[in-house]
Amino acid sequence: MLTNVEHIGIAVRDLAVSNNLFAKLLNVQPYKTETVASEGVVTSFFTVNSGSESPGKSTKIELLEATSPDSPIAKFLEKKGEGIHHIAFEVDDILAEMERLKGEGFTVLNEVPKRGADNKLVCFLHPKGTNGVLIELCQAIKA
Amino acid sequence: MLTNVEHIGIAVRDLAVSNNLFAKLLNVQPYKTETVASEGVVTSFFTVNSGSESPGKSTKIELLEATSPDSPIAKFLEKKGEGIHHIAFEVDDILAEMERLKGEGFTVLNEVPKRGADNKLVCFLHPKGTNGVLIELCQAIKA
Repeated sequence: MLTNVEHIGIAVRDLAVSNNLFAKLLNVQPYKTETVASEGVVTSFFTVNSGSESPGKSTKIELLEATSPDSPIAKFLEKKGEGIHHIAFEVDDILAEMERLKGEGFTVLNEVPKRGADNKLVCFLHPKGTNGVLIELCQAIKA
Repeated sequence: MLTNVEHIGIAVRDLAVSNNLFAKLLNVQPYKTETVASEGVVTSFFTVNSGSESPGKSTKIELLEATSPDSPIAKFLEKKGEGIHHIAFEVDDILAEMERLKGEGFTVLNEVPKRGADNKLVCFLHPKGTNGVLIELCQAIKA
C-alpha cells in the first residue's frame, strides 16, 4: 500500500544556492544534508509546515546535486536541466508492493530494494510505464 | 505560510488511459474529474491512502489533459512530453503569501489569484526563479 507522498525530489546544479532559494520559498531551513555515495548525490531535505501536528506524514522536499559526472542526477541535469526529478511514495511493505506493482505491469528498476537517503529502503519504477514520472517507493528502515 | 504539498500535477496525453494507470499504481480510483475551461484542461484527482485519518492534508495526485491545442498543458506536452507539471502548496492566506514571496524576489505569473480546479484560488510562480519547478500556491475557497 502506498500510504502517502513521502517526498518530491528536485534536481539542482548548486545545492548551496538552491538551499537558500527553497529556504525563502518554504520559510524554513533544511533539516538535514546527506551524501549518498552509491547514487553520486548530495541531498538536503525540507519539511513543509514543520509546525504540523504530524510532520512525519507531511510531504518533504528533497534537493539533489550530483557529486560525479556519471551519476543519474548529472545525466538528468544534462538532458533536462533543473527541475522535478521524482516522486517518492511511502510504503508499509516494500517487497509486497514491488510484487503487487509488477503484477499490474509496472517495471522496477532495481529488483532488490537499495539503501537510499534519509534512512530508507528504496525501489524505483521505470518512467516509461508511469507517464514519464520517475516513481520511488520507500520504506523507513526501523532501528 | 505554505502549510503542505496539496497536490502534484502530472501532464498526460490521454486522461482515460492515465486514470487507469494511476488507479493501478495507487490502488484507488480518482475521486473527481473536472474541466477547467479557462485553463483548457480536464483534470482528475486521486488521494493517496484514502484510509488516512486526515485525508484532507495528504498530498493528492492531479492528472491534466489538454482540451485545446493552445492550452498550457498542450504546450508543455509538445515541449517536454508527459511528466510532472507542477507542485501545488496549500497556503492559509494566498494574498499575504504572494506579497511575502514577491518580497523575497520570486515572480508571480498572475498578480490576482484565479479560480483553479478543486475549489481553489491559485497563483503560479515563474519557474525561472524556482529551479525550473512550476509552483502553484492554492487556497481553498470557503463555502
